[in-house]
Amino acid sequence: MCELLALSANTPTDLRFSFHGLRLRGGSTGDHADGWGLASYDIDGLGVRIYREDAAAAFSPIAAAVAELDLRAHCSMAHIRKATKGVVALENCHPFHRHWQGREWVFAHNGDLHTPLPLAGQHQPIGDTDSEAAFCWFLEQLEARQIAADDEAGLFDALLACSNRLASGGIFNCLLSNGNWLYAYAGTRLHWLTRRAPFGRAWLADDELSVDFAAVTNPTDVVTIVCTEPLTADEAWQPLQVGQGILLKAGAIVQGM
Amino acid sequence: MCELLALSANTPTDLRFSFHGLRLRGGSTGDHADGWGLASYDIDGLGVRIYREDAAAAFSPIAAAVAELDLRAHCSMAHIRKATKGVVALENCHPFHRHWQGREWVFAHNGDLHTPLPLAGQHQPIGDTDSEAAFCWFLEQLEARQIAADDEAGLFDALLACSNRLASGGIFNCLLSNGNWLYAYAGTRLHWLTRRAPFGRAWLADDELSVDFAAVTNPTDVVTIVCTEPLTADEAWQPLQVGQGILLKAGAIVQGM
Repeated sequence: MCELLALSANTPTDLRFSFHGLRLRGGSTGDHADGWGLASYDIDGLGVRIYREDAAAAFSPIAAAVAELDLRAHCSMAHIRKATKGVVALENCHPFHRHWQGREWVFAHNGDLHTPLPLAGQHQPIGDTDSEAAFCWFLEQLEARQIAADDEAGLFDALLACSNRLASGGIFNCLLSNGNWLYAYAGTRLHWLTRRAPFGRAWLADDELSVDFAAVTNPTDVVTIVCTEPLTADEAWQPLQVGQGILLKAGAIVQGM
Repeated sequence: MCELLALSANTPTDLRFSFHGLRLRGGSTGDHADGWGLASYDIDGLGVRIYREDAAAAFSPIAAAVAELDLRAHCSMAHIRKATKGVVALENCHPFHRHWQGREWVFAHNGDLHTPLPLAGQHQPIGDTDSEAAFCWFLEQLEARQIAADDEAGLFDALLACSNRLASGGIFNCLLSNGNWLYAYAGTRLHWLTRRAPFGRAWLADDELSVDFAAVTNPTDVVTIVCTEPLTADEAWQPLQVGQGILLKAGAIVQGM
């Protein structure tokens, strides 16, 4: 299986601390060593940097370099892969990515789907994972529904209905973003945490590393992190309920809570 | 304007030596300091690594790290940007990228188009460059023509006709690939060079750096480099003619010569 990580914030915020912990699980403190990826949207939410590699994140020089980057974003997403469906190959690494409706969409999945999805439209997989097929299927479903760009409730209802349908046919936890919002769904397991003032110090669960968020934030900052397993040892992570989805914008959960 | 670089080879070959020279022109030995990008296909031609940044390649830590990577590919492409149309932003950095027909397509442009292109189909730009619009227009034109995947001559004719049309309305030099082949077109200026046995030593034009290709190649290797301005000082680069396009596969020019 895999591990998921995403960030939504009301001010451009870097994912370094969390990604440092996650990447150790990609072969060192965890066995998700078949690939990794990180997507970080530009401040305007239009451009997106994507770094992917079919190698163990814990030992990759590129992952190490990316972990040092000051990639500040309102929305970013990362994934470490343990292959279940699909060979170990670059085209099978998450986050997957598509251009659609004038935006860049990214998607990451943790799970295992048992039934092939019917895909007849413009969105076709490059690789052979159930995850990329699920992403294409999501886009087809959204296209068929023609939801207005400002209809957040309609969008959320559609995403949740699609997620529940996939979760009924296997294990399905996912992250999806178009640079404007972040959607997270827990078919089995996903945690979240919102950091806001007063900020304190946090210790990574996977390394002797801490950060004093009070020293690197402003009092108005709101940052929500979503991940498979809690990344810090001393913060109050909350599990999403099974079958729960949330839609985040600028660090706040705007739908699903 | 910008500078273009691409590689086609019959064996997985890294672009490091050439990219090292190119990136110096991104703010140091040249003034193309508004962004850079590198796309390198996986050995199967399906997955593609893309590194892009709206920063000067010559001074970017990520560009420096990428220049050290042993990214061996049959096909790769790089670009350094000097903004003419479109602001300095990540979404305006080349190579541009789209998923289409089950493959990953990348495109880079050097030039300046004077007339907006009509785009009515599924391929829409994210940023505001004439270059990304030209890429979308190319894909729409190919889609309309429905060329069979194995019809190389038909593909080349279509690409050349599209290129000539764009070149008639401005400055248009481009690189395009779907991981299977590489297309290069010189509306005004593009050079090429094929390295094959017997291999010798070459010196970069932009740095005190040389490589002895005899020590890092096999006798059967065939590697063709395409670039705006010759990257080495002591090799016999040949200019493409104005209005000339070439299609490359596995290091060989298979159409247009």
